[in-house]
Amino acid sequence: MSFQIPRGTQDILPGETEKWQYIEQTARDLCRRYNYKEIRTPIFEHTELFLRSVGDTTDIVQKEMYTFEDRGGRSITLRPEGTASVVRSFVENKMYGDPNQPIKLYYVGPMFRYERPQAGRFRQFVQFGVEVLGSHDPAIDAEVIALAMEIYRSLGLQKLKLVINSLGDAESRKAHREALINHFKQRIGEFCEDCQARLEKNPLRILDCKKDRDHELMMTAPSILDYLNDESRRYFEKVQMYLTNLGIEFEVDSRLVRGLDYYHHTTFEIMSNAEGFGAITTLCGGGRYNRLVQEIGGPETPGIGFALSIERLLAALEAENISLPVGKGIDCYVAALGEKAKDESVIIVNQLRKAGIVADKDYQDRKVKAQLKAADRLQAKYVAILGDDELDRKVINVKDMNTGEQTEVPLHSLVEYLKERLR
Amino acid sequence: MSFQIPRGTQDILPGETEKWQYIEQTARDLCRRYNYKEIRTPIFEHTELFLRSVGDTTDIVQKEMYTFEDRGGRSITLRPEGTASVVRSFVENKMYGDPNQPIKLYYVGPMFRYERPQAGRFRQFVQFGVEVLGSHDPAIDAEVIALAMEIYRSLGLQKLKLVINSLGDAESRKAHREALINHFKQRIGEFCEDCQARLEKNPLRILDCKKDRDHELMMTAPSILDYLNDESRRYFEKVQMYLTNLGIEFEVDSRLVRGLDYYHHTTFEIMSNAEGFGAITTLCGGGRYNRLVQEIGGPETPGIGFALSIERLLAALEAENISLPVGKGIDCYVAALGEKAKDESVIIVNQLRKAGIVADKDYQDRKVKAQLKAADRLQAKYVAILGDDELDRKVINVKDMNTGEQTEVPLHSLVEYLKERLR
Repeated sequence: MSFQIPRGTQDILPGETEKWQYIEQTARDLCRRYNYKEIRTPIFEHTELFLRSVGDTTDIVQKEMYTFEDRGGRSITLRPEGTASVVRSFVENKMYGDPNQPIKLYYVGPMFRYERPQAGRFRQFVQFGVEVLGSHDPAIDAEVIALAMEIYRSLGLQKLKLVINSLGDAESRKAHREALINHFKQRIGEFCEDCQARLEKNPLRILDCKKDRDHELMMTAPSILDYLNDESRRYFEKVQMYLTNLGIEFEVDSRLVRGLDYYHHTTFEIMSNAEGFGAITTLCGGGRYNRLVQEIGGPETPGIGFALSIERLLAALEAENISLPVGKGIDCYVAALGEKAKDESVIIVNQLRKAGIVADKDYQDRKVKAQLKAADRLQAKYVAILGDDELDRKVINVKDMNTGEQTEVPLHSLVEYLKERLR
Repeated sequence: MSFQIPRGTQDILPGETEKWQYIEQTARDLCRRYNYKEIRTPIFEHTELFLRSVGDTTDIVQKEMYTFEDRGGRSITLRPEGTASVVRSFVENKMYGDPNQPIKLYYVGPMFRYERPQAGRFRQFVQFGVEVLGSHDPAIDAEVIALAMEIYRSLGLQKLKLVINSLGDAESRKAHREALINHFKQRIGEFCEDCQARLEKNPLRILDCKKDRDHELMMTAPSILDYLNDESRRYFEKVQMYLTNLGIEFEVDSRLVRGLDYYHHTTFEIMSNAEGFGAITTLCGGGRYNRLVQEIGGPETPGIGFALSIERLLAALEAENISLPVGKGIDCYVAALGEKAKDESVIIVNQLRKAGIVADKDYQDRKVKAQLKAADRLQAKYVAILGDDELDRKVINVKDMNTGEQTEVPLHSLVEYLKERLR
């Protein structure tokens, strides 16, 4: 009997995991500089949390959640995204009472959506995200966007497009909503069923419709930017000023919207411009959610965040032909000839490792020639060869695999010898 | 409405996550030195995989798995442990065909068991583990044990006890099994129902029984060590010799057994000796499984591995009063007085971060005095204070929070000034 990986998921294997590690470490290091701290929430939550936060009319909730009953009969769901859990934790742990406001958090981990698997789209995928809770300073919007951009830039990506928009405050959104209803209602019969249902419920989401995207009314739909009140306009101008001051290029696109009521003011997306990147070009999406904390049962608290997919980031790196500087090869392979030498090599390898040297040896009872081949495959910088004869003389032969040079080194100074050369 | 975290799970919050990062990084660094590579398998697998590998008579499979049907009607299970997935991936990705044998892998990630939550026991917990596939060299058994010990030692743990045992090969196990049946069968009626069921099916597991542990027949039960054939005995002696050569102390305990048939030869556990550690003292368990790969549908391949719980590792650190050297505090807080200075501080903070300096600023529209308090709370090493007046003169006041010393620094050399002092 043989077993297969579940559809839509992937194993990340040696050779690939090093890239993931590098990307995650880069993001972590940047978060540290920006003073964002990691939070780790469970892989699953009570289902109600996502119904409330992601919204029970969204595709995610209606079609894509991994929802099941646990053995205690409670409905739980594998998290489809990260924000809901972070906000739940913020409220449950009363972080709003911490004097250090805003609370600046990041997370990285798997998310789950039961979607049709296709190129670059998985049912389990990894998101890196940040959430800032407790500030409505437009400078923090700029900081969050700058951090997202910096992650990509630090990894070498060049072909990026940042698009921003503002949804305004509640008043602005309401005015725009009415304008949208007026715009579409006469001819809503020409739109798909989903759009017809959205007209009164959530007309903003009509603009997101993939089926009706070419309808002429889409092009002439009222822009949110024409409905921003003074305060919202000033807020958006400030965000743009900060971005400009930070040297971050952007485009304003009034069609970048979010359906859910708790989104306010800034929304943004970062896309890849790289040729041949494929259809899904959005690498990262984010925005401000000023009513979500309340929705989850906490005090009124502004929030802003983004989430980016590591899978798409890897695809973007590939599209730009960027190879990450991940370490390959080991420092030293210890080859042994004869039983006594073989036993001694166990000790030597251990000494090297204790000294911080990446070392390995044979565990297949290979002959010396095959051991040297193995050292080659492992891209060893040095090979130390020990025979029973050398062992008696307490020396070892060290070969520099780069120059081919061989040196006999006293066993007791092997660690120092290698450390000096590997520095 | 407010939402709670699912029972038996935990949020790991800032202040704690730094410890997790440190532990994981330590383990990763050691794995690198030992030439183990990371593998990442999905959070869930087809349920059959665990039925087959963990064993359908175990508590895990019978009572503790998070099993559910996905939207396609397939039974999937959140992984209760890591070995099954790694072996599934080894087989599915034909790693046995790789010339670099053995395949040395590690993983770290959440596992899930629906157990009664209690101190130190969670329904979602994090395991770090390694698996070596493709070698039956006793030196690799010693390497795996050494790596586990080294992880604990590197973090400062002292009060550790390593216990090892051998289950022998198939022949030895069979002989022992028969001796066990003979030993218990006359009086099996005095044992619990589970043990009665185990007698023919899996008598080794009687030795594990918690209910009957004080029965007199337990003390006198035949020891596996008396049933090892010559080859198995030599194997076990080799493992012990290597451990001794590596300076690793251990005890042999013939009661350290594993019920499942595919375990052979070496088993081991690492326990905490620390006073007041609590009832569950096992930190890490591992062993050799020479038939599991076949069980999962691959070619006959020996394997050995271990898994350790990060939660228990943290408890052991606490029991030994060890605080990990995790970085606290930021490098520089930029305080601003006045509108223009505030806008400029956004740019300054960004410059500092680009230079690798951990920097932050106010986003709460606080007065300068409150900003300085915030800097204190963030344990800033330096505070740079900018007023509109300083901005006009293109300088900034830098205060060393350790000495209290203040210096006026030209804005354009702030980065260099701080970098030098923070080195």
